[in-house]
Amino acid sequence: MNRYEAHLDKNQANYTPLSPLSFLQRAADVYPDLPSIIHGARRYTWAETLNRCTRLASALASRGVGMGDTVSVIAPNIPEMFEVHYAIPMCDAVLNTINTRLDAKTIAHILQHGGCRVLIVDREFSEVAVNALALIERASDEDEILVIDIEDSEMSNVLSTKPVGSVSYEDLLAEGDSQFKWSLPVDEWQAISLNYTSGTTGNPKGVVYHHRGAYLNAVSNISGWTMPHESVYLWTLPMFHCNGWCFPWSLAAIAGTSICLRDICAANIYKALAEHRVTHLCGAPIIMSMICNATKAEQQPLEHTVHMMTAAAPPPAAVLEKIESIGFNVTHVYGLTETYGPAVICAWRKEWDILPAAERARLKARQGVRYQLLEGLDVLDPETLKPVPRDGETIGEIMFRGNIVMRGYLQNPEATDAAFNGGWFHSGDLGVIDNDNYLRILDRSKDIIISGGENISSIEIEDLLYTHPDIAEAAVAARPDDKWGETPCAFVGLRSGAETDEQAIIAYCRERMAHFKCPKTVIFTDLPKTSTGKIQKFKLREQAKALGSL
Amino acid sequence: MNRYEAHLDKNQANYTPLSPLSFLQRAADVYPDLPSIIHGARRYTWAETLNRCTRLASALASRGVGMGDTVSVIAPNIPEMFEVHYAIPMCDAVLNTINTRLDAKTIAHILQHGGCRVLIVDREFSEVAVNALALIERASDEDEILVIDIEDSEMSNVLSTKPVGSVSYEDLLAEGDSQFKWSLPVDEWQAISLNYTSGTTGNPKGVVYHHRGAYLNAVSNISGWTMPHESVYLWTLPMFHCNGWCFPWSLAAIAGTSICLRDICAANIYKALAEHRVTHLCGAPIIMSMICNATKAEQQPLEHTVHMMTAAAPPPAAVLEKIESIGFNVTHVYGLTETYGPAVICAWRKEWDILPAAERARLKARQGVRYQLLEGLDVLDPETLKPVPRDGETIGEIMFRGNIVMRGYLQNPEATDAAFNGGWFHSGDLGVIDNDNYLRILDRSKDIIISGGENISSIEIEDLLYTHPDIAEAAVAARPDDKWGETPCAFVGLRSGAETDEQAIIAYCRERMAHFKCPKTVIFTDLPKTSTGKIQKFKLREQAKALGSL
Repeated sequence: MNRYEAHLDKNQANYTPLSPLSFLQRAADVYPDLPSIIHGARRYTWAETLNRCTRLASALASRGVGMGDTVSVIAPNIPEMFEVHYAIPMCDAVLNTINTRLDAKTIAHILQHGGCRVLIVDREFSEVAVNALALIERASDEDEILVIDIEDSEMSNVLSTKPVGSVSYEDLLAEGDSQFKWSLPVDEWQAISLNYTSGTTGNPKGVVYHHRGAYLNAVSNISGWTMPHESVYLWTLPMFHCNGWCFPWSLAAIAGTSICLRDICAANIYKALAEHRVTHLCGAPIIMSMICNATKAEQQPLEHTVHMMTAAAPPPAAVLEKIESIGFNVTHVYGLTETYGPAVICAWRKEWDILPAAERARLKARQGVRYQLLEGLDVLDPETLKPVPRDGETIGEIMFRGNIVMRGYLQNPEATDAAFNGGWFHSGDLGVIDNDNYLRILDRSKDIIISGGENISSIEIEDLLYTHPDIAEAAVAARPDDKWGETPCAFVGLRSGAETDEQAIIAYCRERMAHFKCPKTVIFTDLPKTSTGKIQKFKLREQAKALGSL
Repeated sequence: MNRYEAHLDKNQANYTPLSPLSFLQRAADVYPDLPSIIHGARRYTWAETLNRCTRLASALASRGVGMGDTVSVIAPNIPEMFEVHYAIPMCDAVLNTINTRLDAKTIAHILQHGGCRVLIVDREFSEVAVNALALIERASDEDEILVIDIEDSEMSNVLSTKPVGSVSYEDLLAEGDSQFKWSLPVDEWQAISLNYTSGTTGNPKGVVYHHRGAYLNAVSNISGWTMPHESVYLWTLPMFHCNGWCFPWSLAAIAGTSICLRDICAANIYKALAEHRVTHLCGAPIIMSMICNATKAEQQPLEHTVHMMTAAAPPPAAVLEKIESIGFNVTHVYGLTETYGPAVICAWRKEWDILPAAERARLKARQGVRYQLLEGLDVLDPETLKPVPRDGETIGEIMFRGNIVMRGYLQNPEATDAAFNGGWFHSGDLGVIDNDNYLRILDRSKDIIISGGENISSIEIEDLLYTHPDIAEAAVAARPDDKWGETPCAFVGLRSGAETDEQAIIAYCRERMAHFKCPKTVIFTDLPKTSTGKIQKFKLREQAKALGSL
């Protein structure tokens, strides 16, 4: 025994399990009067938010909700959605937010697979909730799900909808005791939330987060994005998506204000930016497009720089240039549901400031480097698990390691073991490391097009298509080909009023990239998207496949 | 067993012990080319710093240094001092930095009590090291301490000093293997460093830090102070002081650059600020005074805002106003050796921006609120451990709780138990909580003057004295009094050229505060200070006591 092992043990004074619940307690202790949430006419302070969360936790606990119980929530970005991020873990239960655009069948699957005991549902989603609940097979009456209705006074037609459950959210709060003695989890490894993967691959899995990871990624957001105390954050990113990338927890740590939006559209975004002097927001490229393509009537002048974090797809250089010219400072991040949302950040290097705009955009469209609190990120050969050379060319699988990697997939040991094979989390995404050590994603493995034995990155083609002045959005998938195996097929959405044709676009590409990489087919269409703005490439892949050989 | 307990265990992919060593690995992986340390003509990149740390760890390990061994270091703020913060924990040993202004006897006590196996000493401190080593009682030859000499080429007279040990730092590095396989600690609770309290109370205790706490406080510095990526940090705070408040670790996390200074004086500070475009520095009020009182020749114009963090004593309002007018943005923090340095921050509230300068300075001189990653801070009745009312008047003892509180005192279970009594760390400092929830320190309990049964805060009197135009520094202690028990005795240092007398200063106070609180005695003198710029009030207390009754 060395001298550092004796009488230097953990105790209540020097050890606290890491949990984001501490951030709410701190915000309410120190800044009870500062605004926590603003949603139209509804405004709360941190004291009120702690009070409401405590009462919700108390009421749920009184109704028997406790350790390891799953509480599911279907709601837009409203105060209740923020509150459940605290109230549910406060009674040792697990928060399961559900994508509001899912169909009843998928929701039923999630409720059943996740073992939902309580469902909190906003009136806007009453209908799909009723349909989902009707599909659930229950073993006995004891399994009955307690359903709670959110009646948001900011929902214009709330009274025209029907309640699904037996109690409203506010009535439940009224049952609760604001003096309820909640406590931090004894073990920071305890589950805090359950997030189903978005289904771009068609097979949603239940990703389990723990208090330690939620705490650490909430802090990573702050330190990595240099978010100051009292930031004002606009909720354009759905909170159901990876727990809003952990920002509900980050915001309490910095006593920031959440600006809620039920309806996310260009006019509402610009209005909120100006009215609340928003400093930060997050969102998929669809939000960037919304901002860039706003009509004159929707726009409002920005008198301050707004920091925007974006992910889901590499932001096209043209969109980046446009939005920065409006007054946004864009930070590009990358992550997966399995990494608590953002875990990789394209940290800006000072020396890039002086580069031309196009070059800056190219650098910024890369995924970047690991979050300060992510312990490992590399591109490995998926067979040998050896790192690939950092030459910007050698493709491997992007893998993660550290405290902001999920506990695993709920009730799916096979998928969990496969994901963690060899002590790394296998993302399924392919990428390269450039010679300055920045990660560049190429494609999900199924998005690589193999033509004449050559790997073609569909993202590389998409990036080029986005530079075309007539193209608003683009996605590329593999079309079967008798001669080449596969050829690139481009799906393109044009800007309103734009006129061009297949041959013109192919010619545009051939002038600018290796001919074998150019699309052989161009289809003009509205691109299918998930609710988080991700283009659903699996649908396009099916469509391209169905075309058959050229 | 609930559904979240099965097949969701820790593994290499999803769990990493928290350790600041991860930050160095990340900086070297991602930013190998960025400058880590600049010390005059000596410049290192993060790749070089990792290389040098790895070789030092390797060489120490080859010489048998390992788990739980103490490695002591006596050095100024130079690259080697930064490196040992990584290299020593990399071989599972414990870093013990020693205050360079201590006498040989105290150093000998620390080396012996801490179980020093290796001593790394800068040539500037050869003499005191030789004397200290001569005082150590060794049980056998096996206990001999390996001594390593640092020969810094930036030390002007390095060749006029004599080596103490058997090997130089650079020769030791040359023995090391840059491919040495160091690893993170298996247990994040493992000791990382040993810091002896500064001795203002005359009884130094060995405070043990662990990897988890060092990691979390390093992050707290970044998030609490909103430090951006690639900050440039000037080392005016001694790294031997609470491991430089954990900033050697913070800086790797943000790939910041350390600017080293062997000789900390106004001219060197101004020169470094301008030459390296320093963005951040820390220091006791003595550094603020140095900056404010610089001569015209020493000053250089500041073209950018410099962020300064200060602690140790509440910055006098007059000094705050002055230094902010020069171009510094001051953040006031508070903490103890036992809390990894800063653990409380006077987080600025937006609404204070519009207040008059004097009022802003008054608000900023308060200690503030707990660090984002400190889980508990309160002012408690030391008897009942109940929180005092937050009325700005009721005095209690300041207590801490959370992960950035020390493991305990080395080989001192009685002091450890006393410090952690009731599940709180007892700071020994007295304070109040204002009604806006900001902590205001009044005094260490022994600095309270009890006169006619009334408690008088010596700090309150000092704050007033600092507003006097002729006074450069001031401290107040209790003088025994036959009638009143005690009366305040002011020790005052005048600005150069200033002329005033005892009666004028007493009159100045009587015009501005309750008469019973005013000094009855004023002594003009140079105030004794510790090497960290803390006024040694215990010496003044002794002096005041020796005066006897008025």
